[in-house]
This record gives sequence, structure tokens and C-alpha cells, in this order.
Amino acid sequence: MRLQHDHIEVRTKGKGTYEITDEVQARIEKSGVRSGTVTAFVQHTSCSLAMMENAASAARRDVERFFDRLVPENADYEHDDEGPDDMPSHIRMVLTRTSETIPIIDGQMQLGTWQGIFLFEHRRAAHRRRIHLTFIGE
Amino acid sequence: MRLQHDHIEVRTKGKGTYEITDEVQARIEKSGVRSGTVTAFVQHTSCSLAMMENAASAARRDVERFFDRLVPENADYEHDDEGPDDMPSHIRMVLTRTSETIPIIDGQMQLGTWQGIFLFEHRRAAHRRRIHLTFIGE
Amino acid sequence: MRLQHDHIEVRTKGKGTYEITDEVQARIEKSGVRSGTVTAFVQHTSCSLAMMENAASAARRDVERFFDRLVPENADYEHDDEGPDDMPSHIRMVLTRTSETIPIIDGQMQLGTWQGIFLFEHRRAAHRRRIHLTFIGE
Repeated sequence: MRLQHDHIEVRTKGKGTYEITDEVQARIEKSGVRSGTVTAFVQHTSCSLAMMENAASAARRDVERFFDRLVPENADYEHDDEGPDDMPSHIRMVLTRTSETIPIIDGQMQLGTWQGIFLFEHRRAAHRRRIHLTFIGE
Repeated sequence: MRLQHDHIEVRTKGKGTYEITDEVQARIEKSGVRSGTVTAFVQHTSCSLAMMENAASAARRDVERFFDRLVPENADYEHDDEGPDDMPSHIRMVLTRTSETIPIIDGQMQLGTWQGIFLFEHRRAAHRRRIHLTFIGE
Repeated sequence: MRLQHDHIEVRTKGKGTYEITDEVQARIEKSGVRSGTVTAFVQHTSCSLAMMENAASAARRDVERFFDRLVPENADYEHDDEGPDDMPSHIRMVLTRTSETIPIIDGQMQLGTWQGIFLFEHRRAAHRRRIHLTFIGE
């Protein structure tokens, strides 16, 4: 059993979902872990992780629109001094995920056929986002 | 320290919550891990995991009704070619969980008194659902 | 590689978010794990975990108000015999998190600058809440 740390960076260009599945898989290969788990952890408070359908881009747009309606930008927030997209971003993050642990067998993430890992960006401005990866296994 | 993989299958018969606590516990006993963690990971994009009250079935029905109202079937989705329950299922999955990591001591999951693990099925049709289990421990 | 268990207790005084970041960090130091992960697991069905902005208390109040509106106390629940705040607490728990896995390097949780770990209490009455911690690492 061994443990390794790594991280990936995603340059976001506004609100939306950015798939990171291939990049996480590439880091698993680099880590040498053949059997175990990878834990992805988003080190931010205005973006999050989502496991989603990765075949139909329309499905991703529907998810994004749902969150725009559920947590709207102008809802009379008390904390409103960092822009209209700031407070909704913190709420969306609480409703989605910060960490996700995914099994690895034979060096491959054990995802379902249509399952992808996405960074869910909740801010309008461009950001450089950091996702920590921890590999535990053999 | 050692690591083991296993999985369970759940045959669902429409939308709702299906308790898997006892089956996960049985697999822990089979794994031989006495102290550590089990990570459950759902390998699908239209069902998810929920940790819930397992005593009152009325509480489960209230949870299910809440999600039916929050993410309704006919909400003018762009991605609507796989049936009215398809797009809501992807959104409900983002709002709930794909992976959950639970501690094990003395071969027993350390759940609270009323706490159970549930597969949350979001599709109307019958499905065979696969939940991967990874055990890490001693 | 080694594995250790610990737990913390939080005495809550009604609905709201209670930061536990410093207490989790103190337990990491006690565990002796310098590189690895800590998994926090809430052993209850009416409170949950939230990763959140920890600088602005107004942001926390906005998150709490959002959940009060999204999952109101009087919504004609079938399961209503344990008080008006009981059923909403189970739903809020499903919408947030039970477990969270956080990386550790050099004995420090790898959190973002403004990122804190919070117990999210959903009941009105005072409670003593237990959060199990599992450390895996070197």
C-alpha cells in the first residue's frame, strides 16, 4: 500500500461544467497505483465537483440552467459585496460536492459508461482552479 | 493495511429509495477488514446515494416527494429524448451523492442509530444498479 | 501506512453552521499522520457537513436562509410527529453531505484559503453531535 499526492489545474472561463475525467485518469497512470482509490478535492469555495452524464452536452446545459434557477443571482443576499454571482456560488457549492472518492482497478477509474467527473464553476470571471488528488493503493 | 474491491447489485423497480445497509455490512464481514473505511461508489448517472433515516418509511416518502417537486419531470428541458424522467435523474444525482466513505471499527460500520445507506433510484423503469465497494484497512 | 480513528463532539444550540476546522486540524496533529487523508463522517440523520467560506459570517447566514426557504418547516410532510423541524432536517441532510475526505500534507489539511469545515445543524433544540474521523497515511 502506498499513498501519493498530485493536483490538476483547470482554467475556467465563466460559469459552467468542465470535464476533468481524462486528466484525472492520466494522473492515475503517472502515480503507478493499479488498485485503490483516488480522492479528488476542490480547494475553493465558489466552484465544486459534479459526477455527470458526459455524452450529451444538452444534459449539462440543463443541469447548469437548473442551478441558475434554484440559486438565482439576485435574491436579496446579505453578503453581496463581491458581485451578484458570489453568494450563489457558495450556496451551489454546499448543494454539490467538494470531495469525491473513485475506485481504481487495473490502473483504470471504475466509472460507469456515461459517467464523467466535472469541475462545476460558479463564477462568471475566469479563474485558475486547483483540484487536489490523493491516490491510495497498490 | 490492505485494500479490497467488491460490488453489490440492486434491482430497482422504479423511482424511490432502496436500503443497502445490511448488504454493505455483509460485504465488510466477507472482506475481513476489521478497522478502516468502506467507500461506496455508484457507477451510474441516473441514480445516486443517500444517507438517511431508516426507521420511518414516511420520512423516506417525504424525501422522495421533495425531490419530485424540486426537480419536476416536465420542466422544458433541452435534453428530453430519453423520456421525461431522464433529465431530472441527472439533476437529482448532482444534488445528492455518488460516493460515500464510512468508518469501520471491530468489523462494523460506524453508523448512527437511525442512519442507513440507500440507493436513490431516479428512473421509472426497472434497472440493475451496481455499487462498487472499496475496503481499506487492517 | 497506518490508520487511526478518533472523533469530535459538537454541542449545537439550534439551527446553523458550526465551524470545526481547527478541531479537525488538532486531531490530525494528535494522530501523527503527516501525509494522507482525513475522512469526517457525521453519525446523525438531522445534521450534516458543509464545506464553506469561513471568512464572512454574512455568507453563512445566507446559506442558512437559503436552506430555510428551499426546505421549509411547514410543507405538509407525512412524517410530522417529531416536530416541524424534523422532516426538513432529513431532507437537508440528503442535499448536503455526510462524509468528506480531505488531503493532508506535512501534517496540514490542504484546504483553500477561505475554506472551512462546518457541522450544519438542522434541528432547533440543543444537541451533542458526534463526527467520526478516520486518518489514513504515513
